[in-house]
Amino acid sequence: MSIRIAVDLGGTHIRAASYRRDETRPLKHQKIKTRSKNETLLERILNLIESVIPEGEIPTAIGIAAPGPLNPRTGVILNTPNIPDWENYPIADKVNARFHIPVYLGNDANLAGLGEWRYGAGQGHENLLYLTISTGIGGGVISDGHLLEGWQGLAGELGHVTVVADGPVCGCGHKGHLEAFSSGTGIARYVEEQLEDDTVESSLRSRAKRTAELIAEAARKGDPLAVSAYERAGKYLGIGVASFLHIFNPSILIFGGGVSQSGELLWTPFRKSLQEHIFNPAYLENLVITPAALGDDAGLLGALALVGMKEKTKENSVDV
Amino acid sequence: MSIRIAVDLGGTHIRAASYRRDETRPLKHQKIKTRSKNETLLERILNLIESVIPEGEIPTAIGIAAPGPLNPRTGVILNTPNIPDWENYPIADKVNARFHIPVYLGNDANLAGLGEWRYGAGQGHENLLYLTISTGIGGGVISDGHLLEGWQGLAGELGHVTVVADGPVCGCGHKGHLEAFSSGTGIARYVEEQLEDDTVESSLRSRAKRTAELIAEAARKGDPLAVSAYERAGKYLGIGVASFLHIFNPSILIFGGGVSQSGELLWTPFRKSLQEHIFNPAYLENLVITPAALGDDAGLLGALALVGMKEKTKENSVDV
Repeated sequence: MSIRIAVDLGGTHIRAASYRRDETRPLKHQKIKTRSKNETLLERILNLIESVIPEGEIPTAIGIAAPGPLNPRTGVILNTPNIPDWENYPIADKVNARFHIPVYLGNDANLAGLGEWRYGAGQGHENLLYLTISTGIGGGVISDGHLLEGWQGLAGELGHVTVVADGPVCGCGHKGHLEAFSSGTGIARYVEEQLEDDTVESSLRSRAKRTAELIAEAARKGDPLAVSAYERAGKYLGIGVASFLHIFNPSILIFGGGVSQSGELLWTPFRKSLQEHIFNPAYLENLVITPAALGDDAGLLGALALVGMKEKTKENSVDV
Repeated sequence: MSIRIAVDLGGTHIRAASYRRDETRPLKHQKIKTRSKNETLLERILNLIESVIPEGEIPTAIGIAAPGPLNPRTGVILNTPNIPDWENYPIADKVNARFHIPVYLGNDANLAGLGEWRYGAGQGHENLLYLTISTGIGGGVISDGHLLEGWQGLAGELGHVTVVADGPVCGCGHKGHLEAFSSGTGIARYVEEQLEDDTVESSLRSRAKRTAELIAEAARKGDPLAVSAYERAGKYLGIGVASFLHIFNPSILIFGGGVSQSGELLWTPFRKSLQEHIFNPAYLENLVITPAALGDDAGLLGALALVGMKEKTKENSVDV
């Protein structure tokens, strides 16, 4: 029986699962907290992988989805905000040293796009744009049936594209990126800034932890500041996405991540802005815009799809 | 003898040439003006193609580079600024009706990138970003050895990417695109706007036709307005290119087009801005930045490379 392992390394949880070839229902599946006082993160990952391997089986390969920036060609995580001690960390080699099978690493947003293409909302499309909008904004692009990875695998950082030069500061420290406007962090930061002006009235003023979710709740109750925060996020998302359509001309646009579930608060201003900013109507004709289908499994199934893609490439290159 | 035909359809000139397979030196080459009172444009193109076919030969295919937007999948030119009567014009079918061989159509900037990859400055790279900076700005992207075309072939419109939402008006009518800042038209328009203020002193005030070239000349003589126009163009070009590197992570960046030949006027502020706006230094490590190598032949050799690419795809799909 040909078994593959997928790992989704997140800031709060790590998940791992084993799959039979051509199946997406896991044989075994485990989820643990990322941090622990008793073990190193590597030990936790290795033990978790061990725990999902069915007895008596030797998997053919392991796929790992991790937050970027990372280099999928070398299997090295360059640096990742939630794991400060993993600077230039060769995670693929470390896991390979224990299991002695190929280990493939990919950027979690890129892989979520790949997963949606293979198993989710994007099946049957050959040109796909996936955007995850949560704390940050990440992207995954399939172009003519190929995952966009770039030379060092650093492609698809669609949150870090400038929409307003010299605009508000982004989580990365640079200015005017799409993420600074339309991510959960961008929405919350805008509200904080507006509240510095004492004349601005808002039900949010009395609330302690003003998250994007709380702001969405206030917006639904008609709070004008909260509404304007989502209008702004939608407007700039429309501007950014118009640029992405001019760049990639996909046939499907898939939105994942918590903020993308805010409903019409975000989507009404988004659609208006997208219509206004597209420079030729052809880009929007027959374009499918849809929510992601894989939910919390996007990372795992993306890592599984990565293994499938790499094994297929290997088989093809052996054939030639 | 296997012969291929390439056509470069420009606003002022049309060029056509015939090539032996695996050669880039043309067997026959002709260049004529695009417009004529005596013939329709289609007649001119058909006769021009006829004139470059060596006697007794039947070419295997014809490649055509034309200004976008166009659909390479259907061979239809959607609309093109310089040829107003060609709206939704099925150029590939029209040419095929005369010669009865496959006709492939591509966006001229996309194809110039493809040509630079196959025959020019980008040989040996698998992830390439080509930008042409002249009257407008166009792009050509090779990602992991594949030309980025998109679903309908409308991808790679890198001049029409927003760098300043609600910024100055672009040639396309939308606001704040890269082309509005860093193209020849953008540079000239900025100078015109500044001269509307009577207190701005500039040697350009007395000149009649203030083109990007004339402005470059004035800048080299130290005219402060002219210098600032190129500084601005270089700054926003750096911002746009930083976004493109985050999106594509290429190993080589190739610049073509007249404005790209302005020298340090443009490149000094460009490099400074690129360094400032890149969000991880890894994108610039070992990145090759170089001028285009094919010059005026970029369109023809791009169209030739398109024929090669399409014939190769066909051969592969026949094999399977």
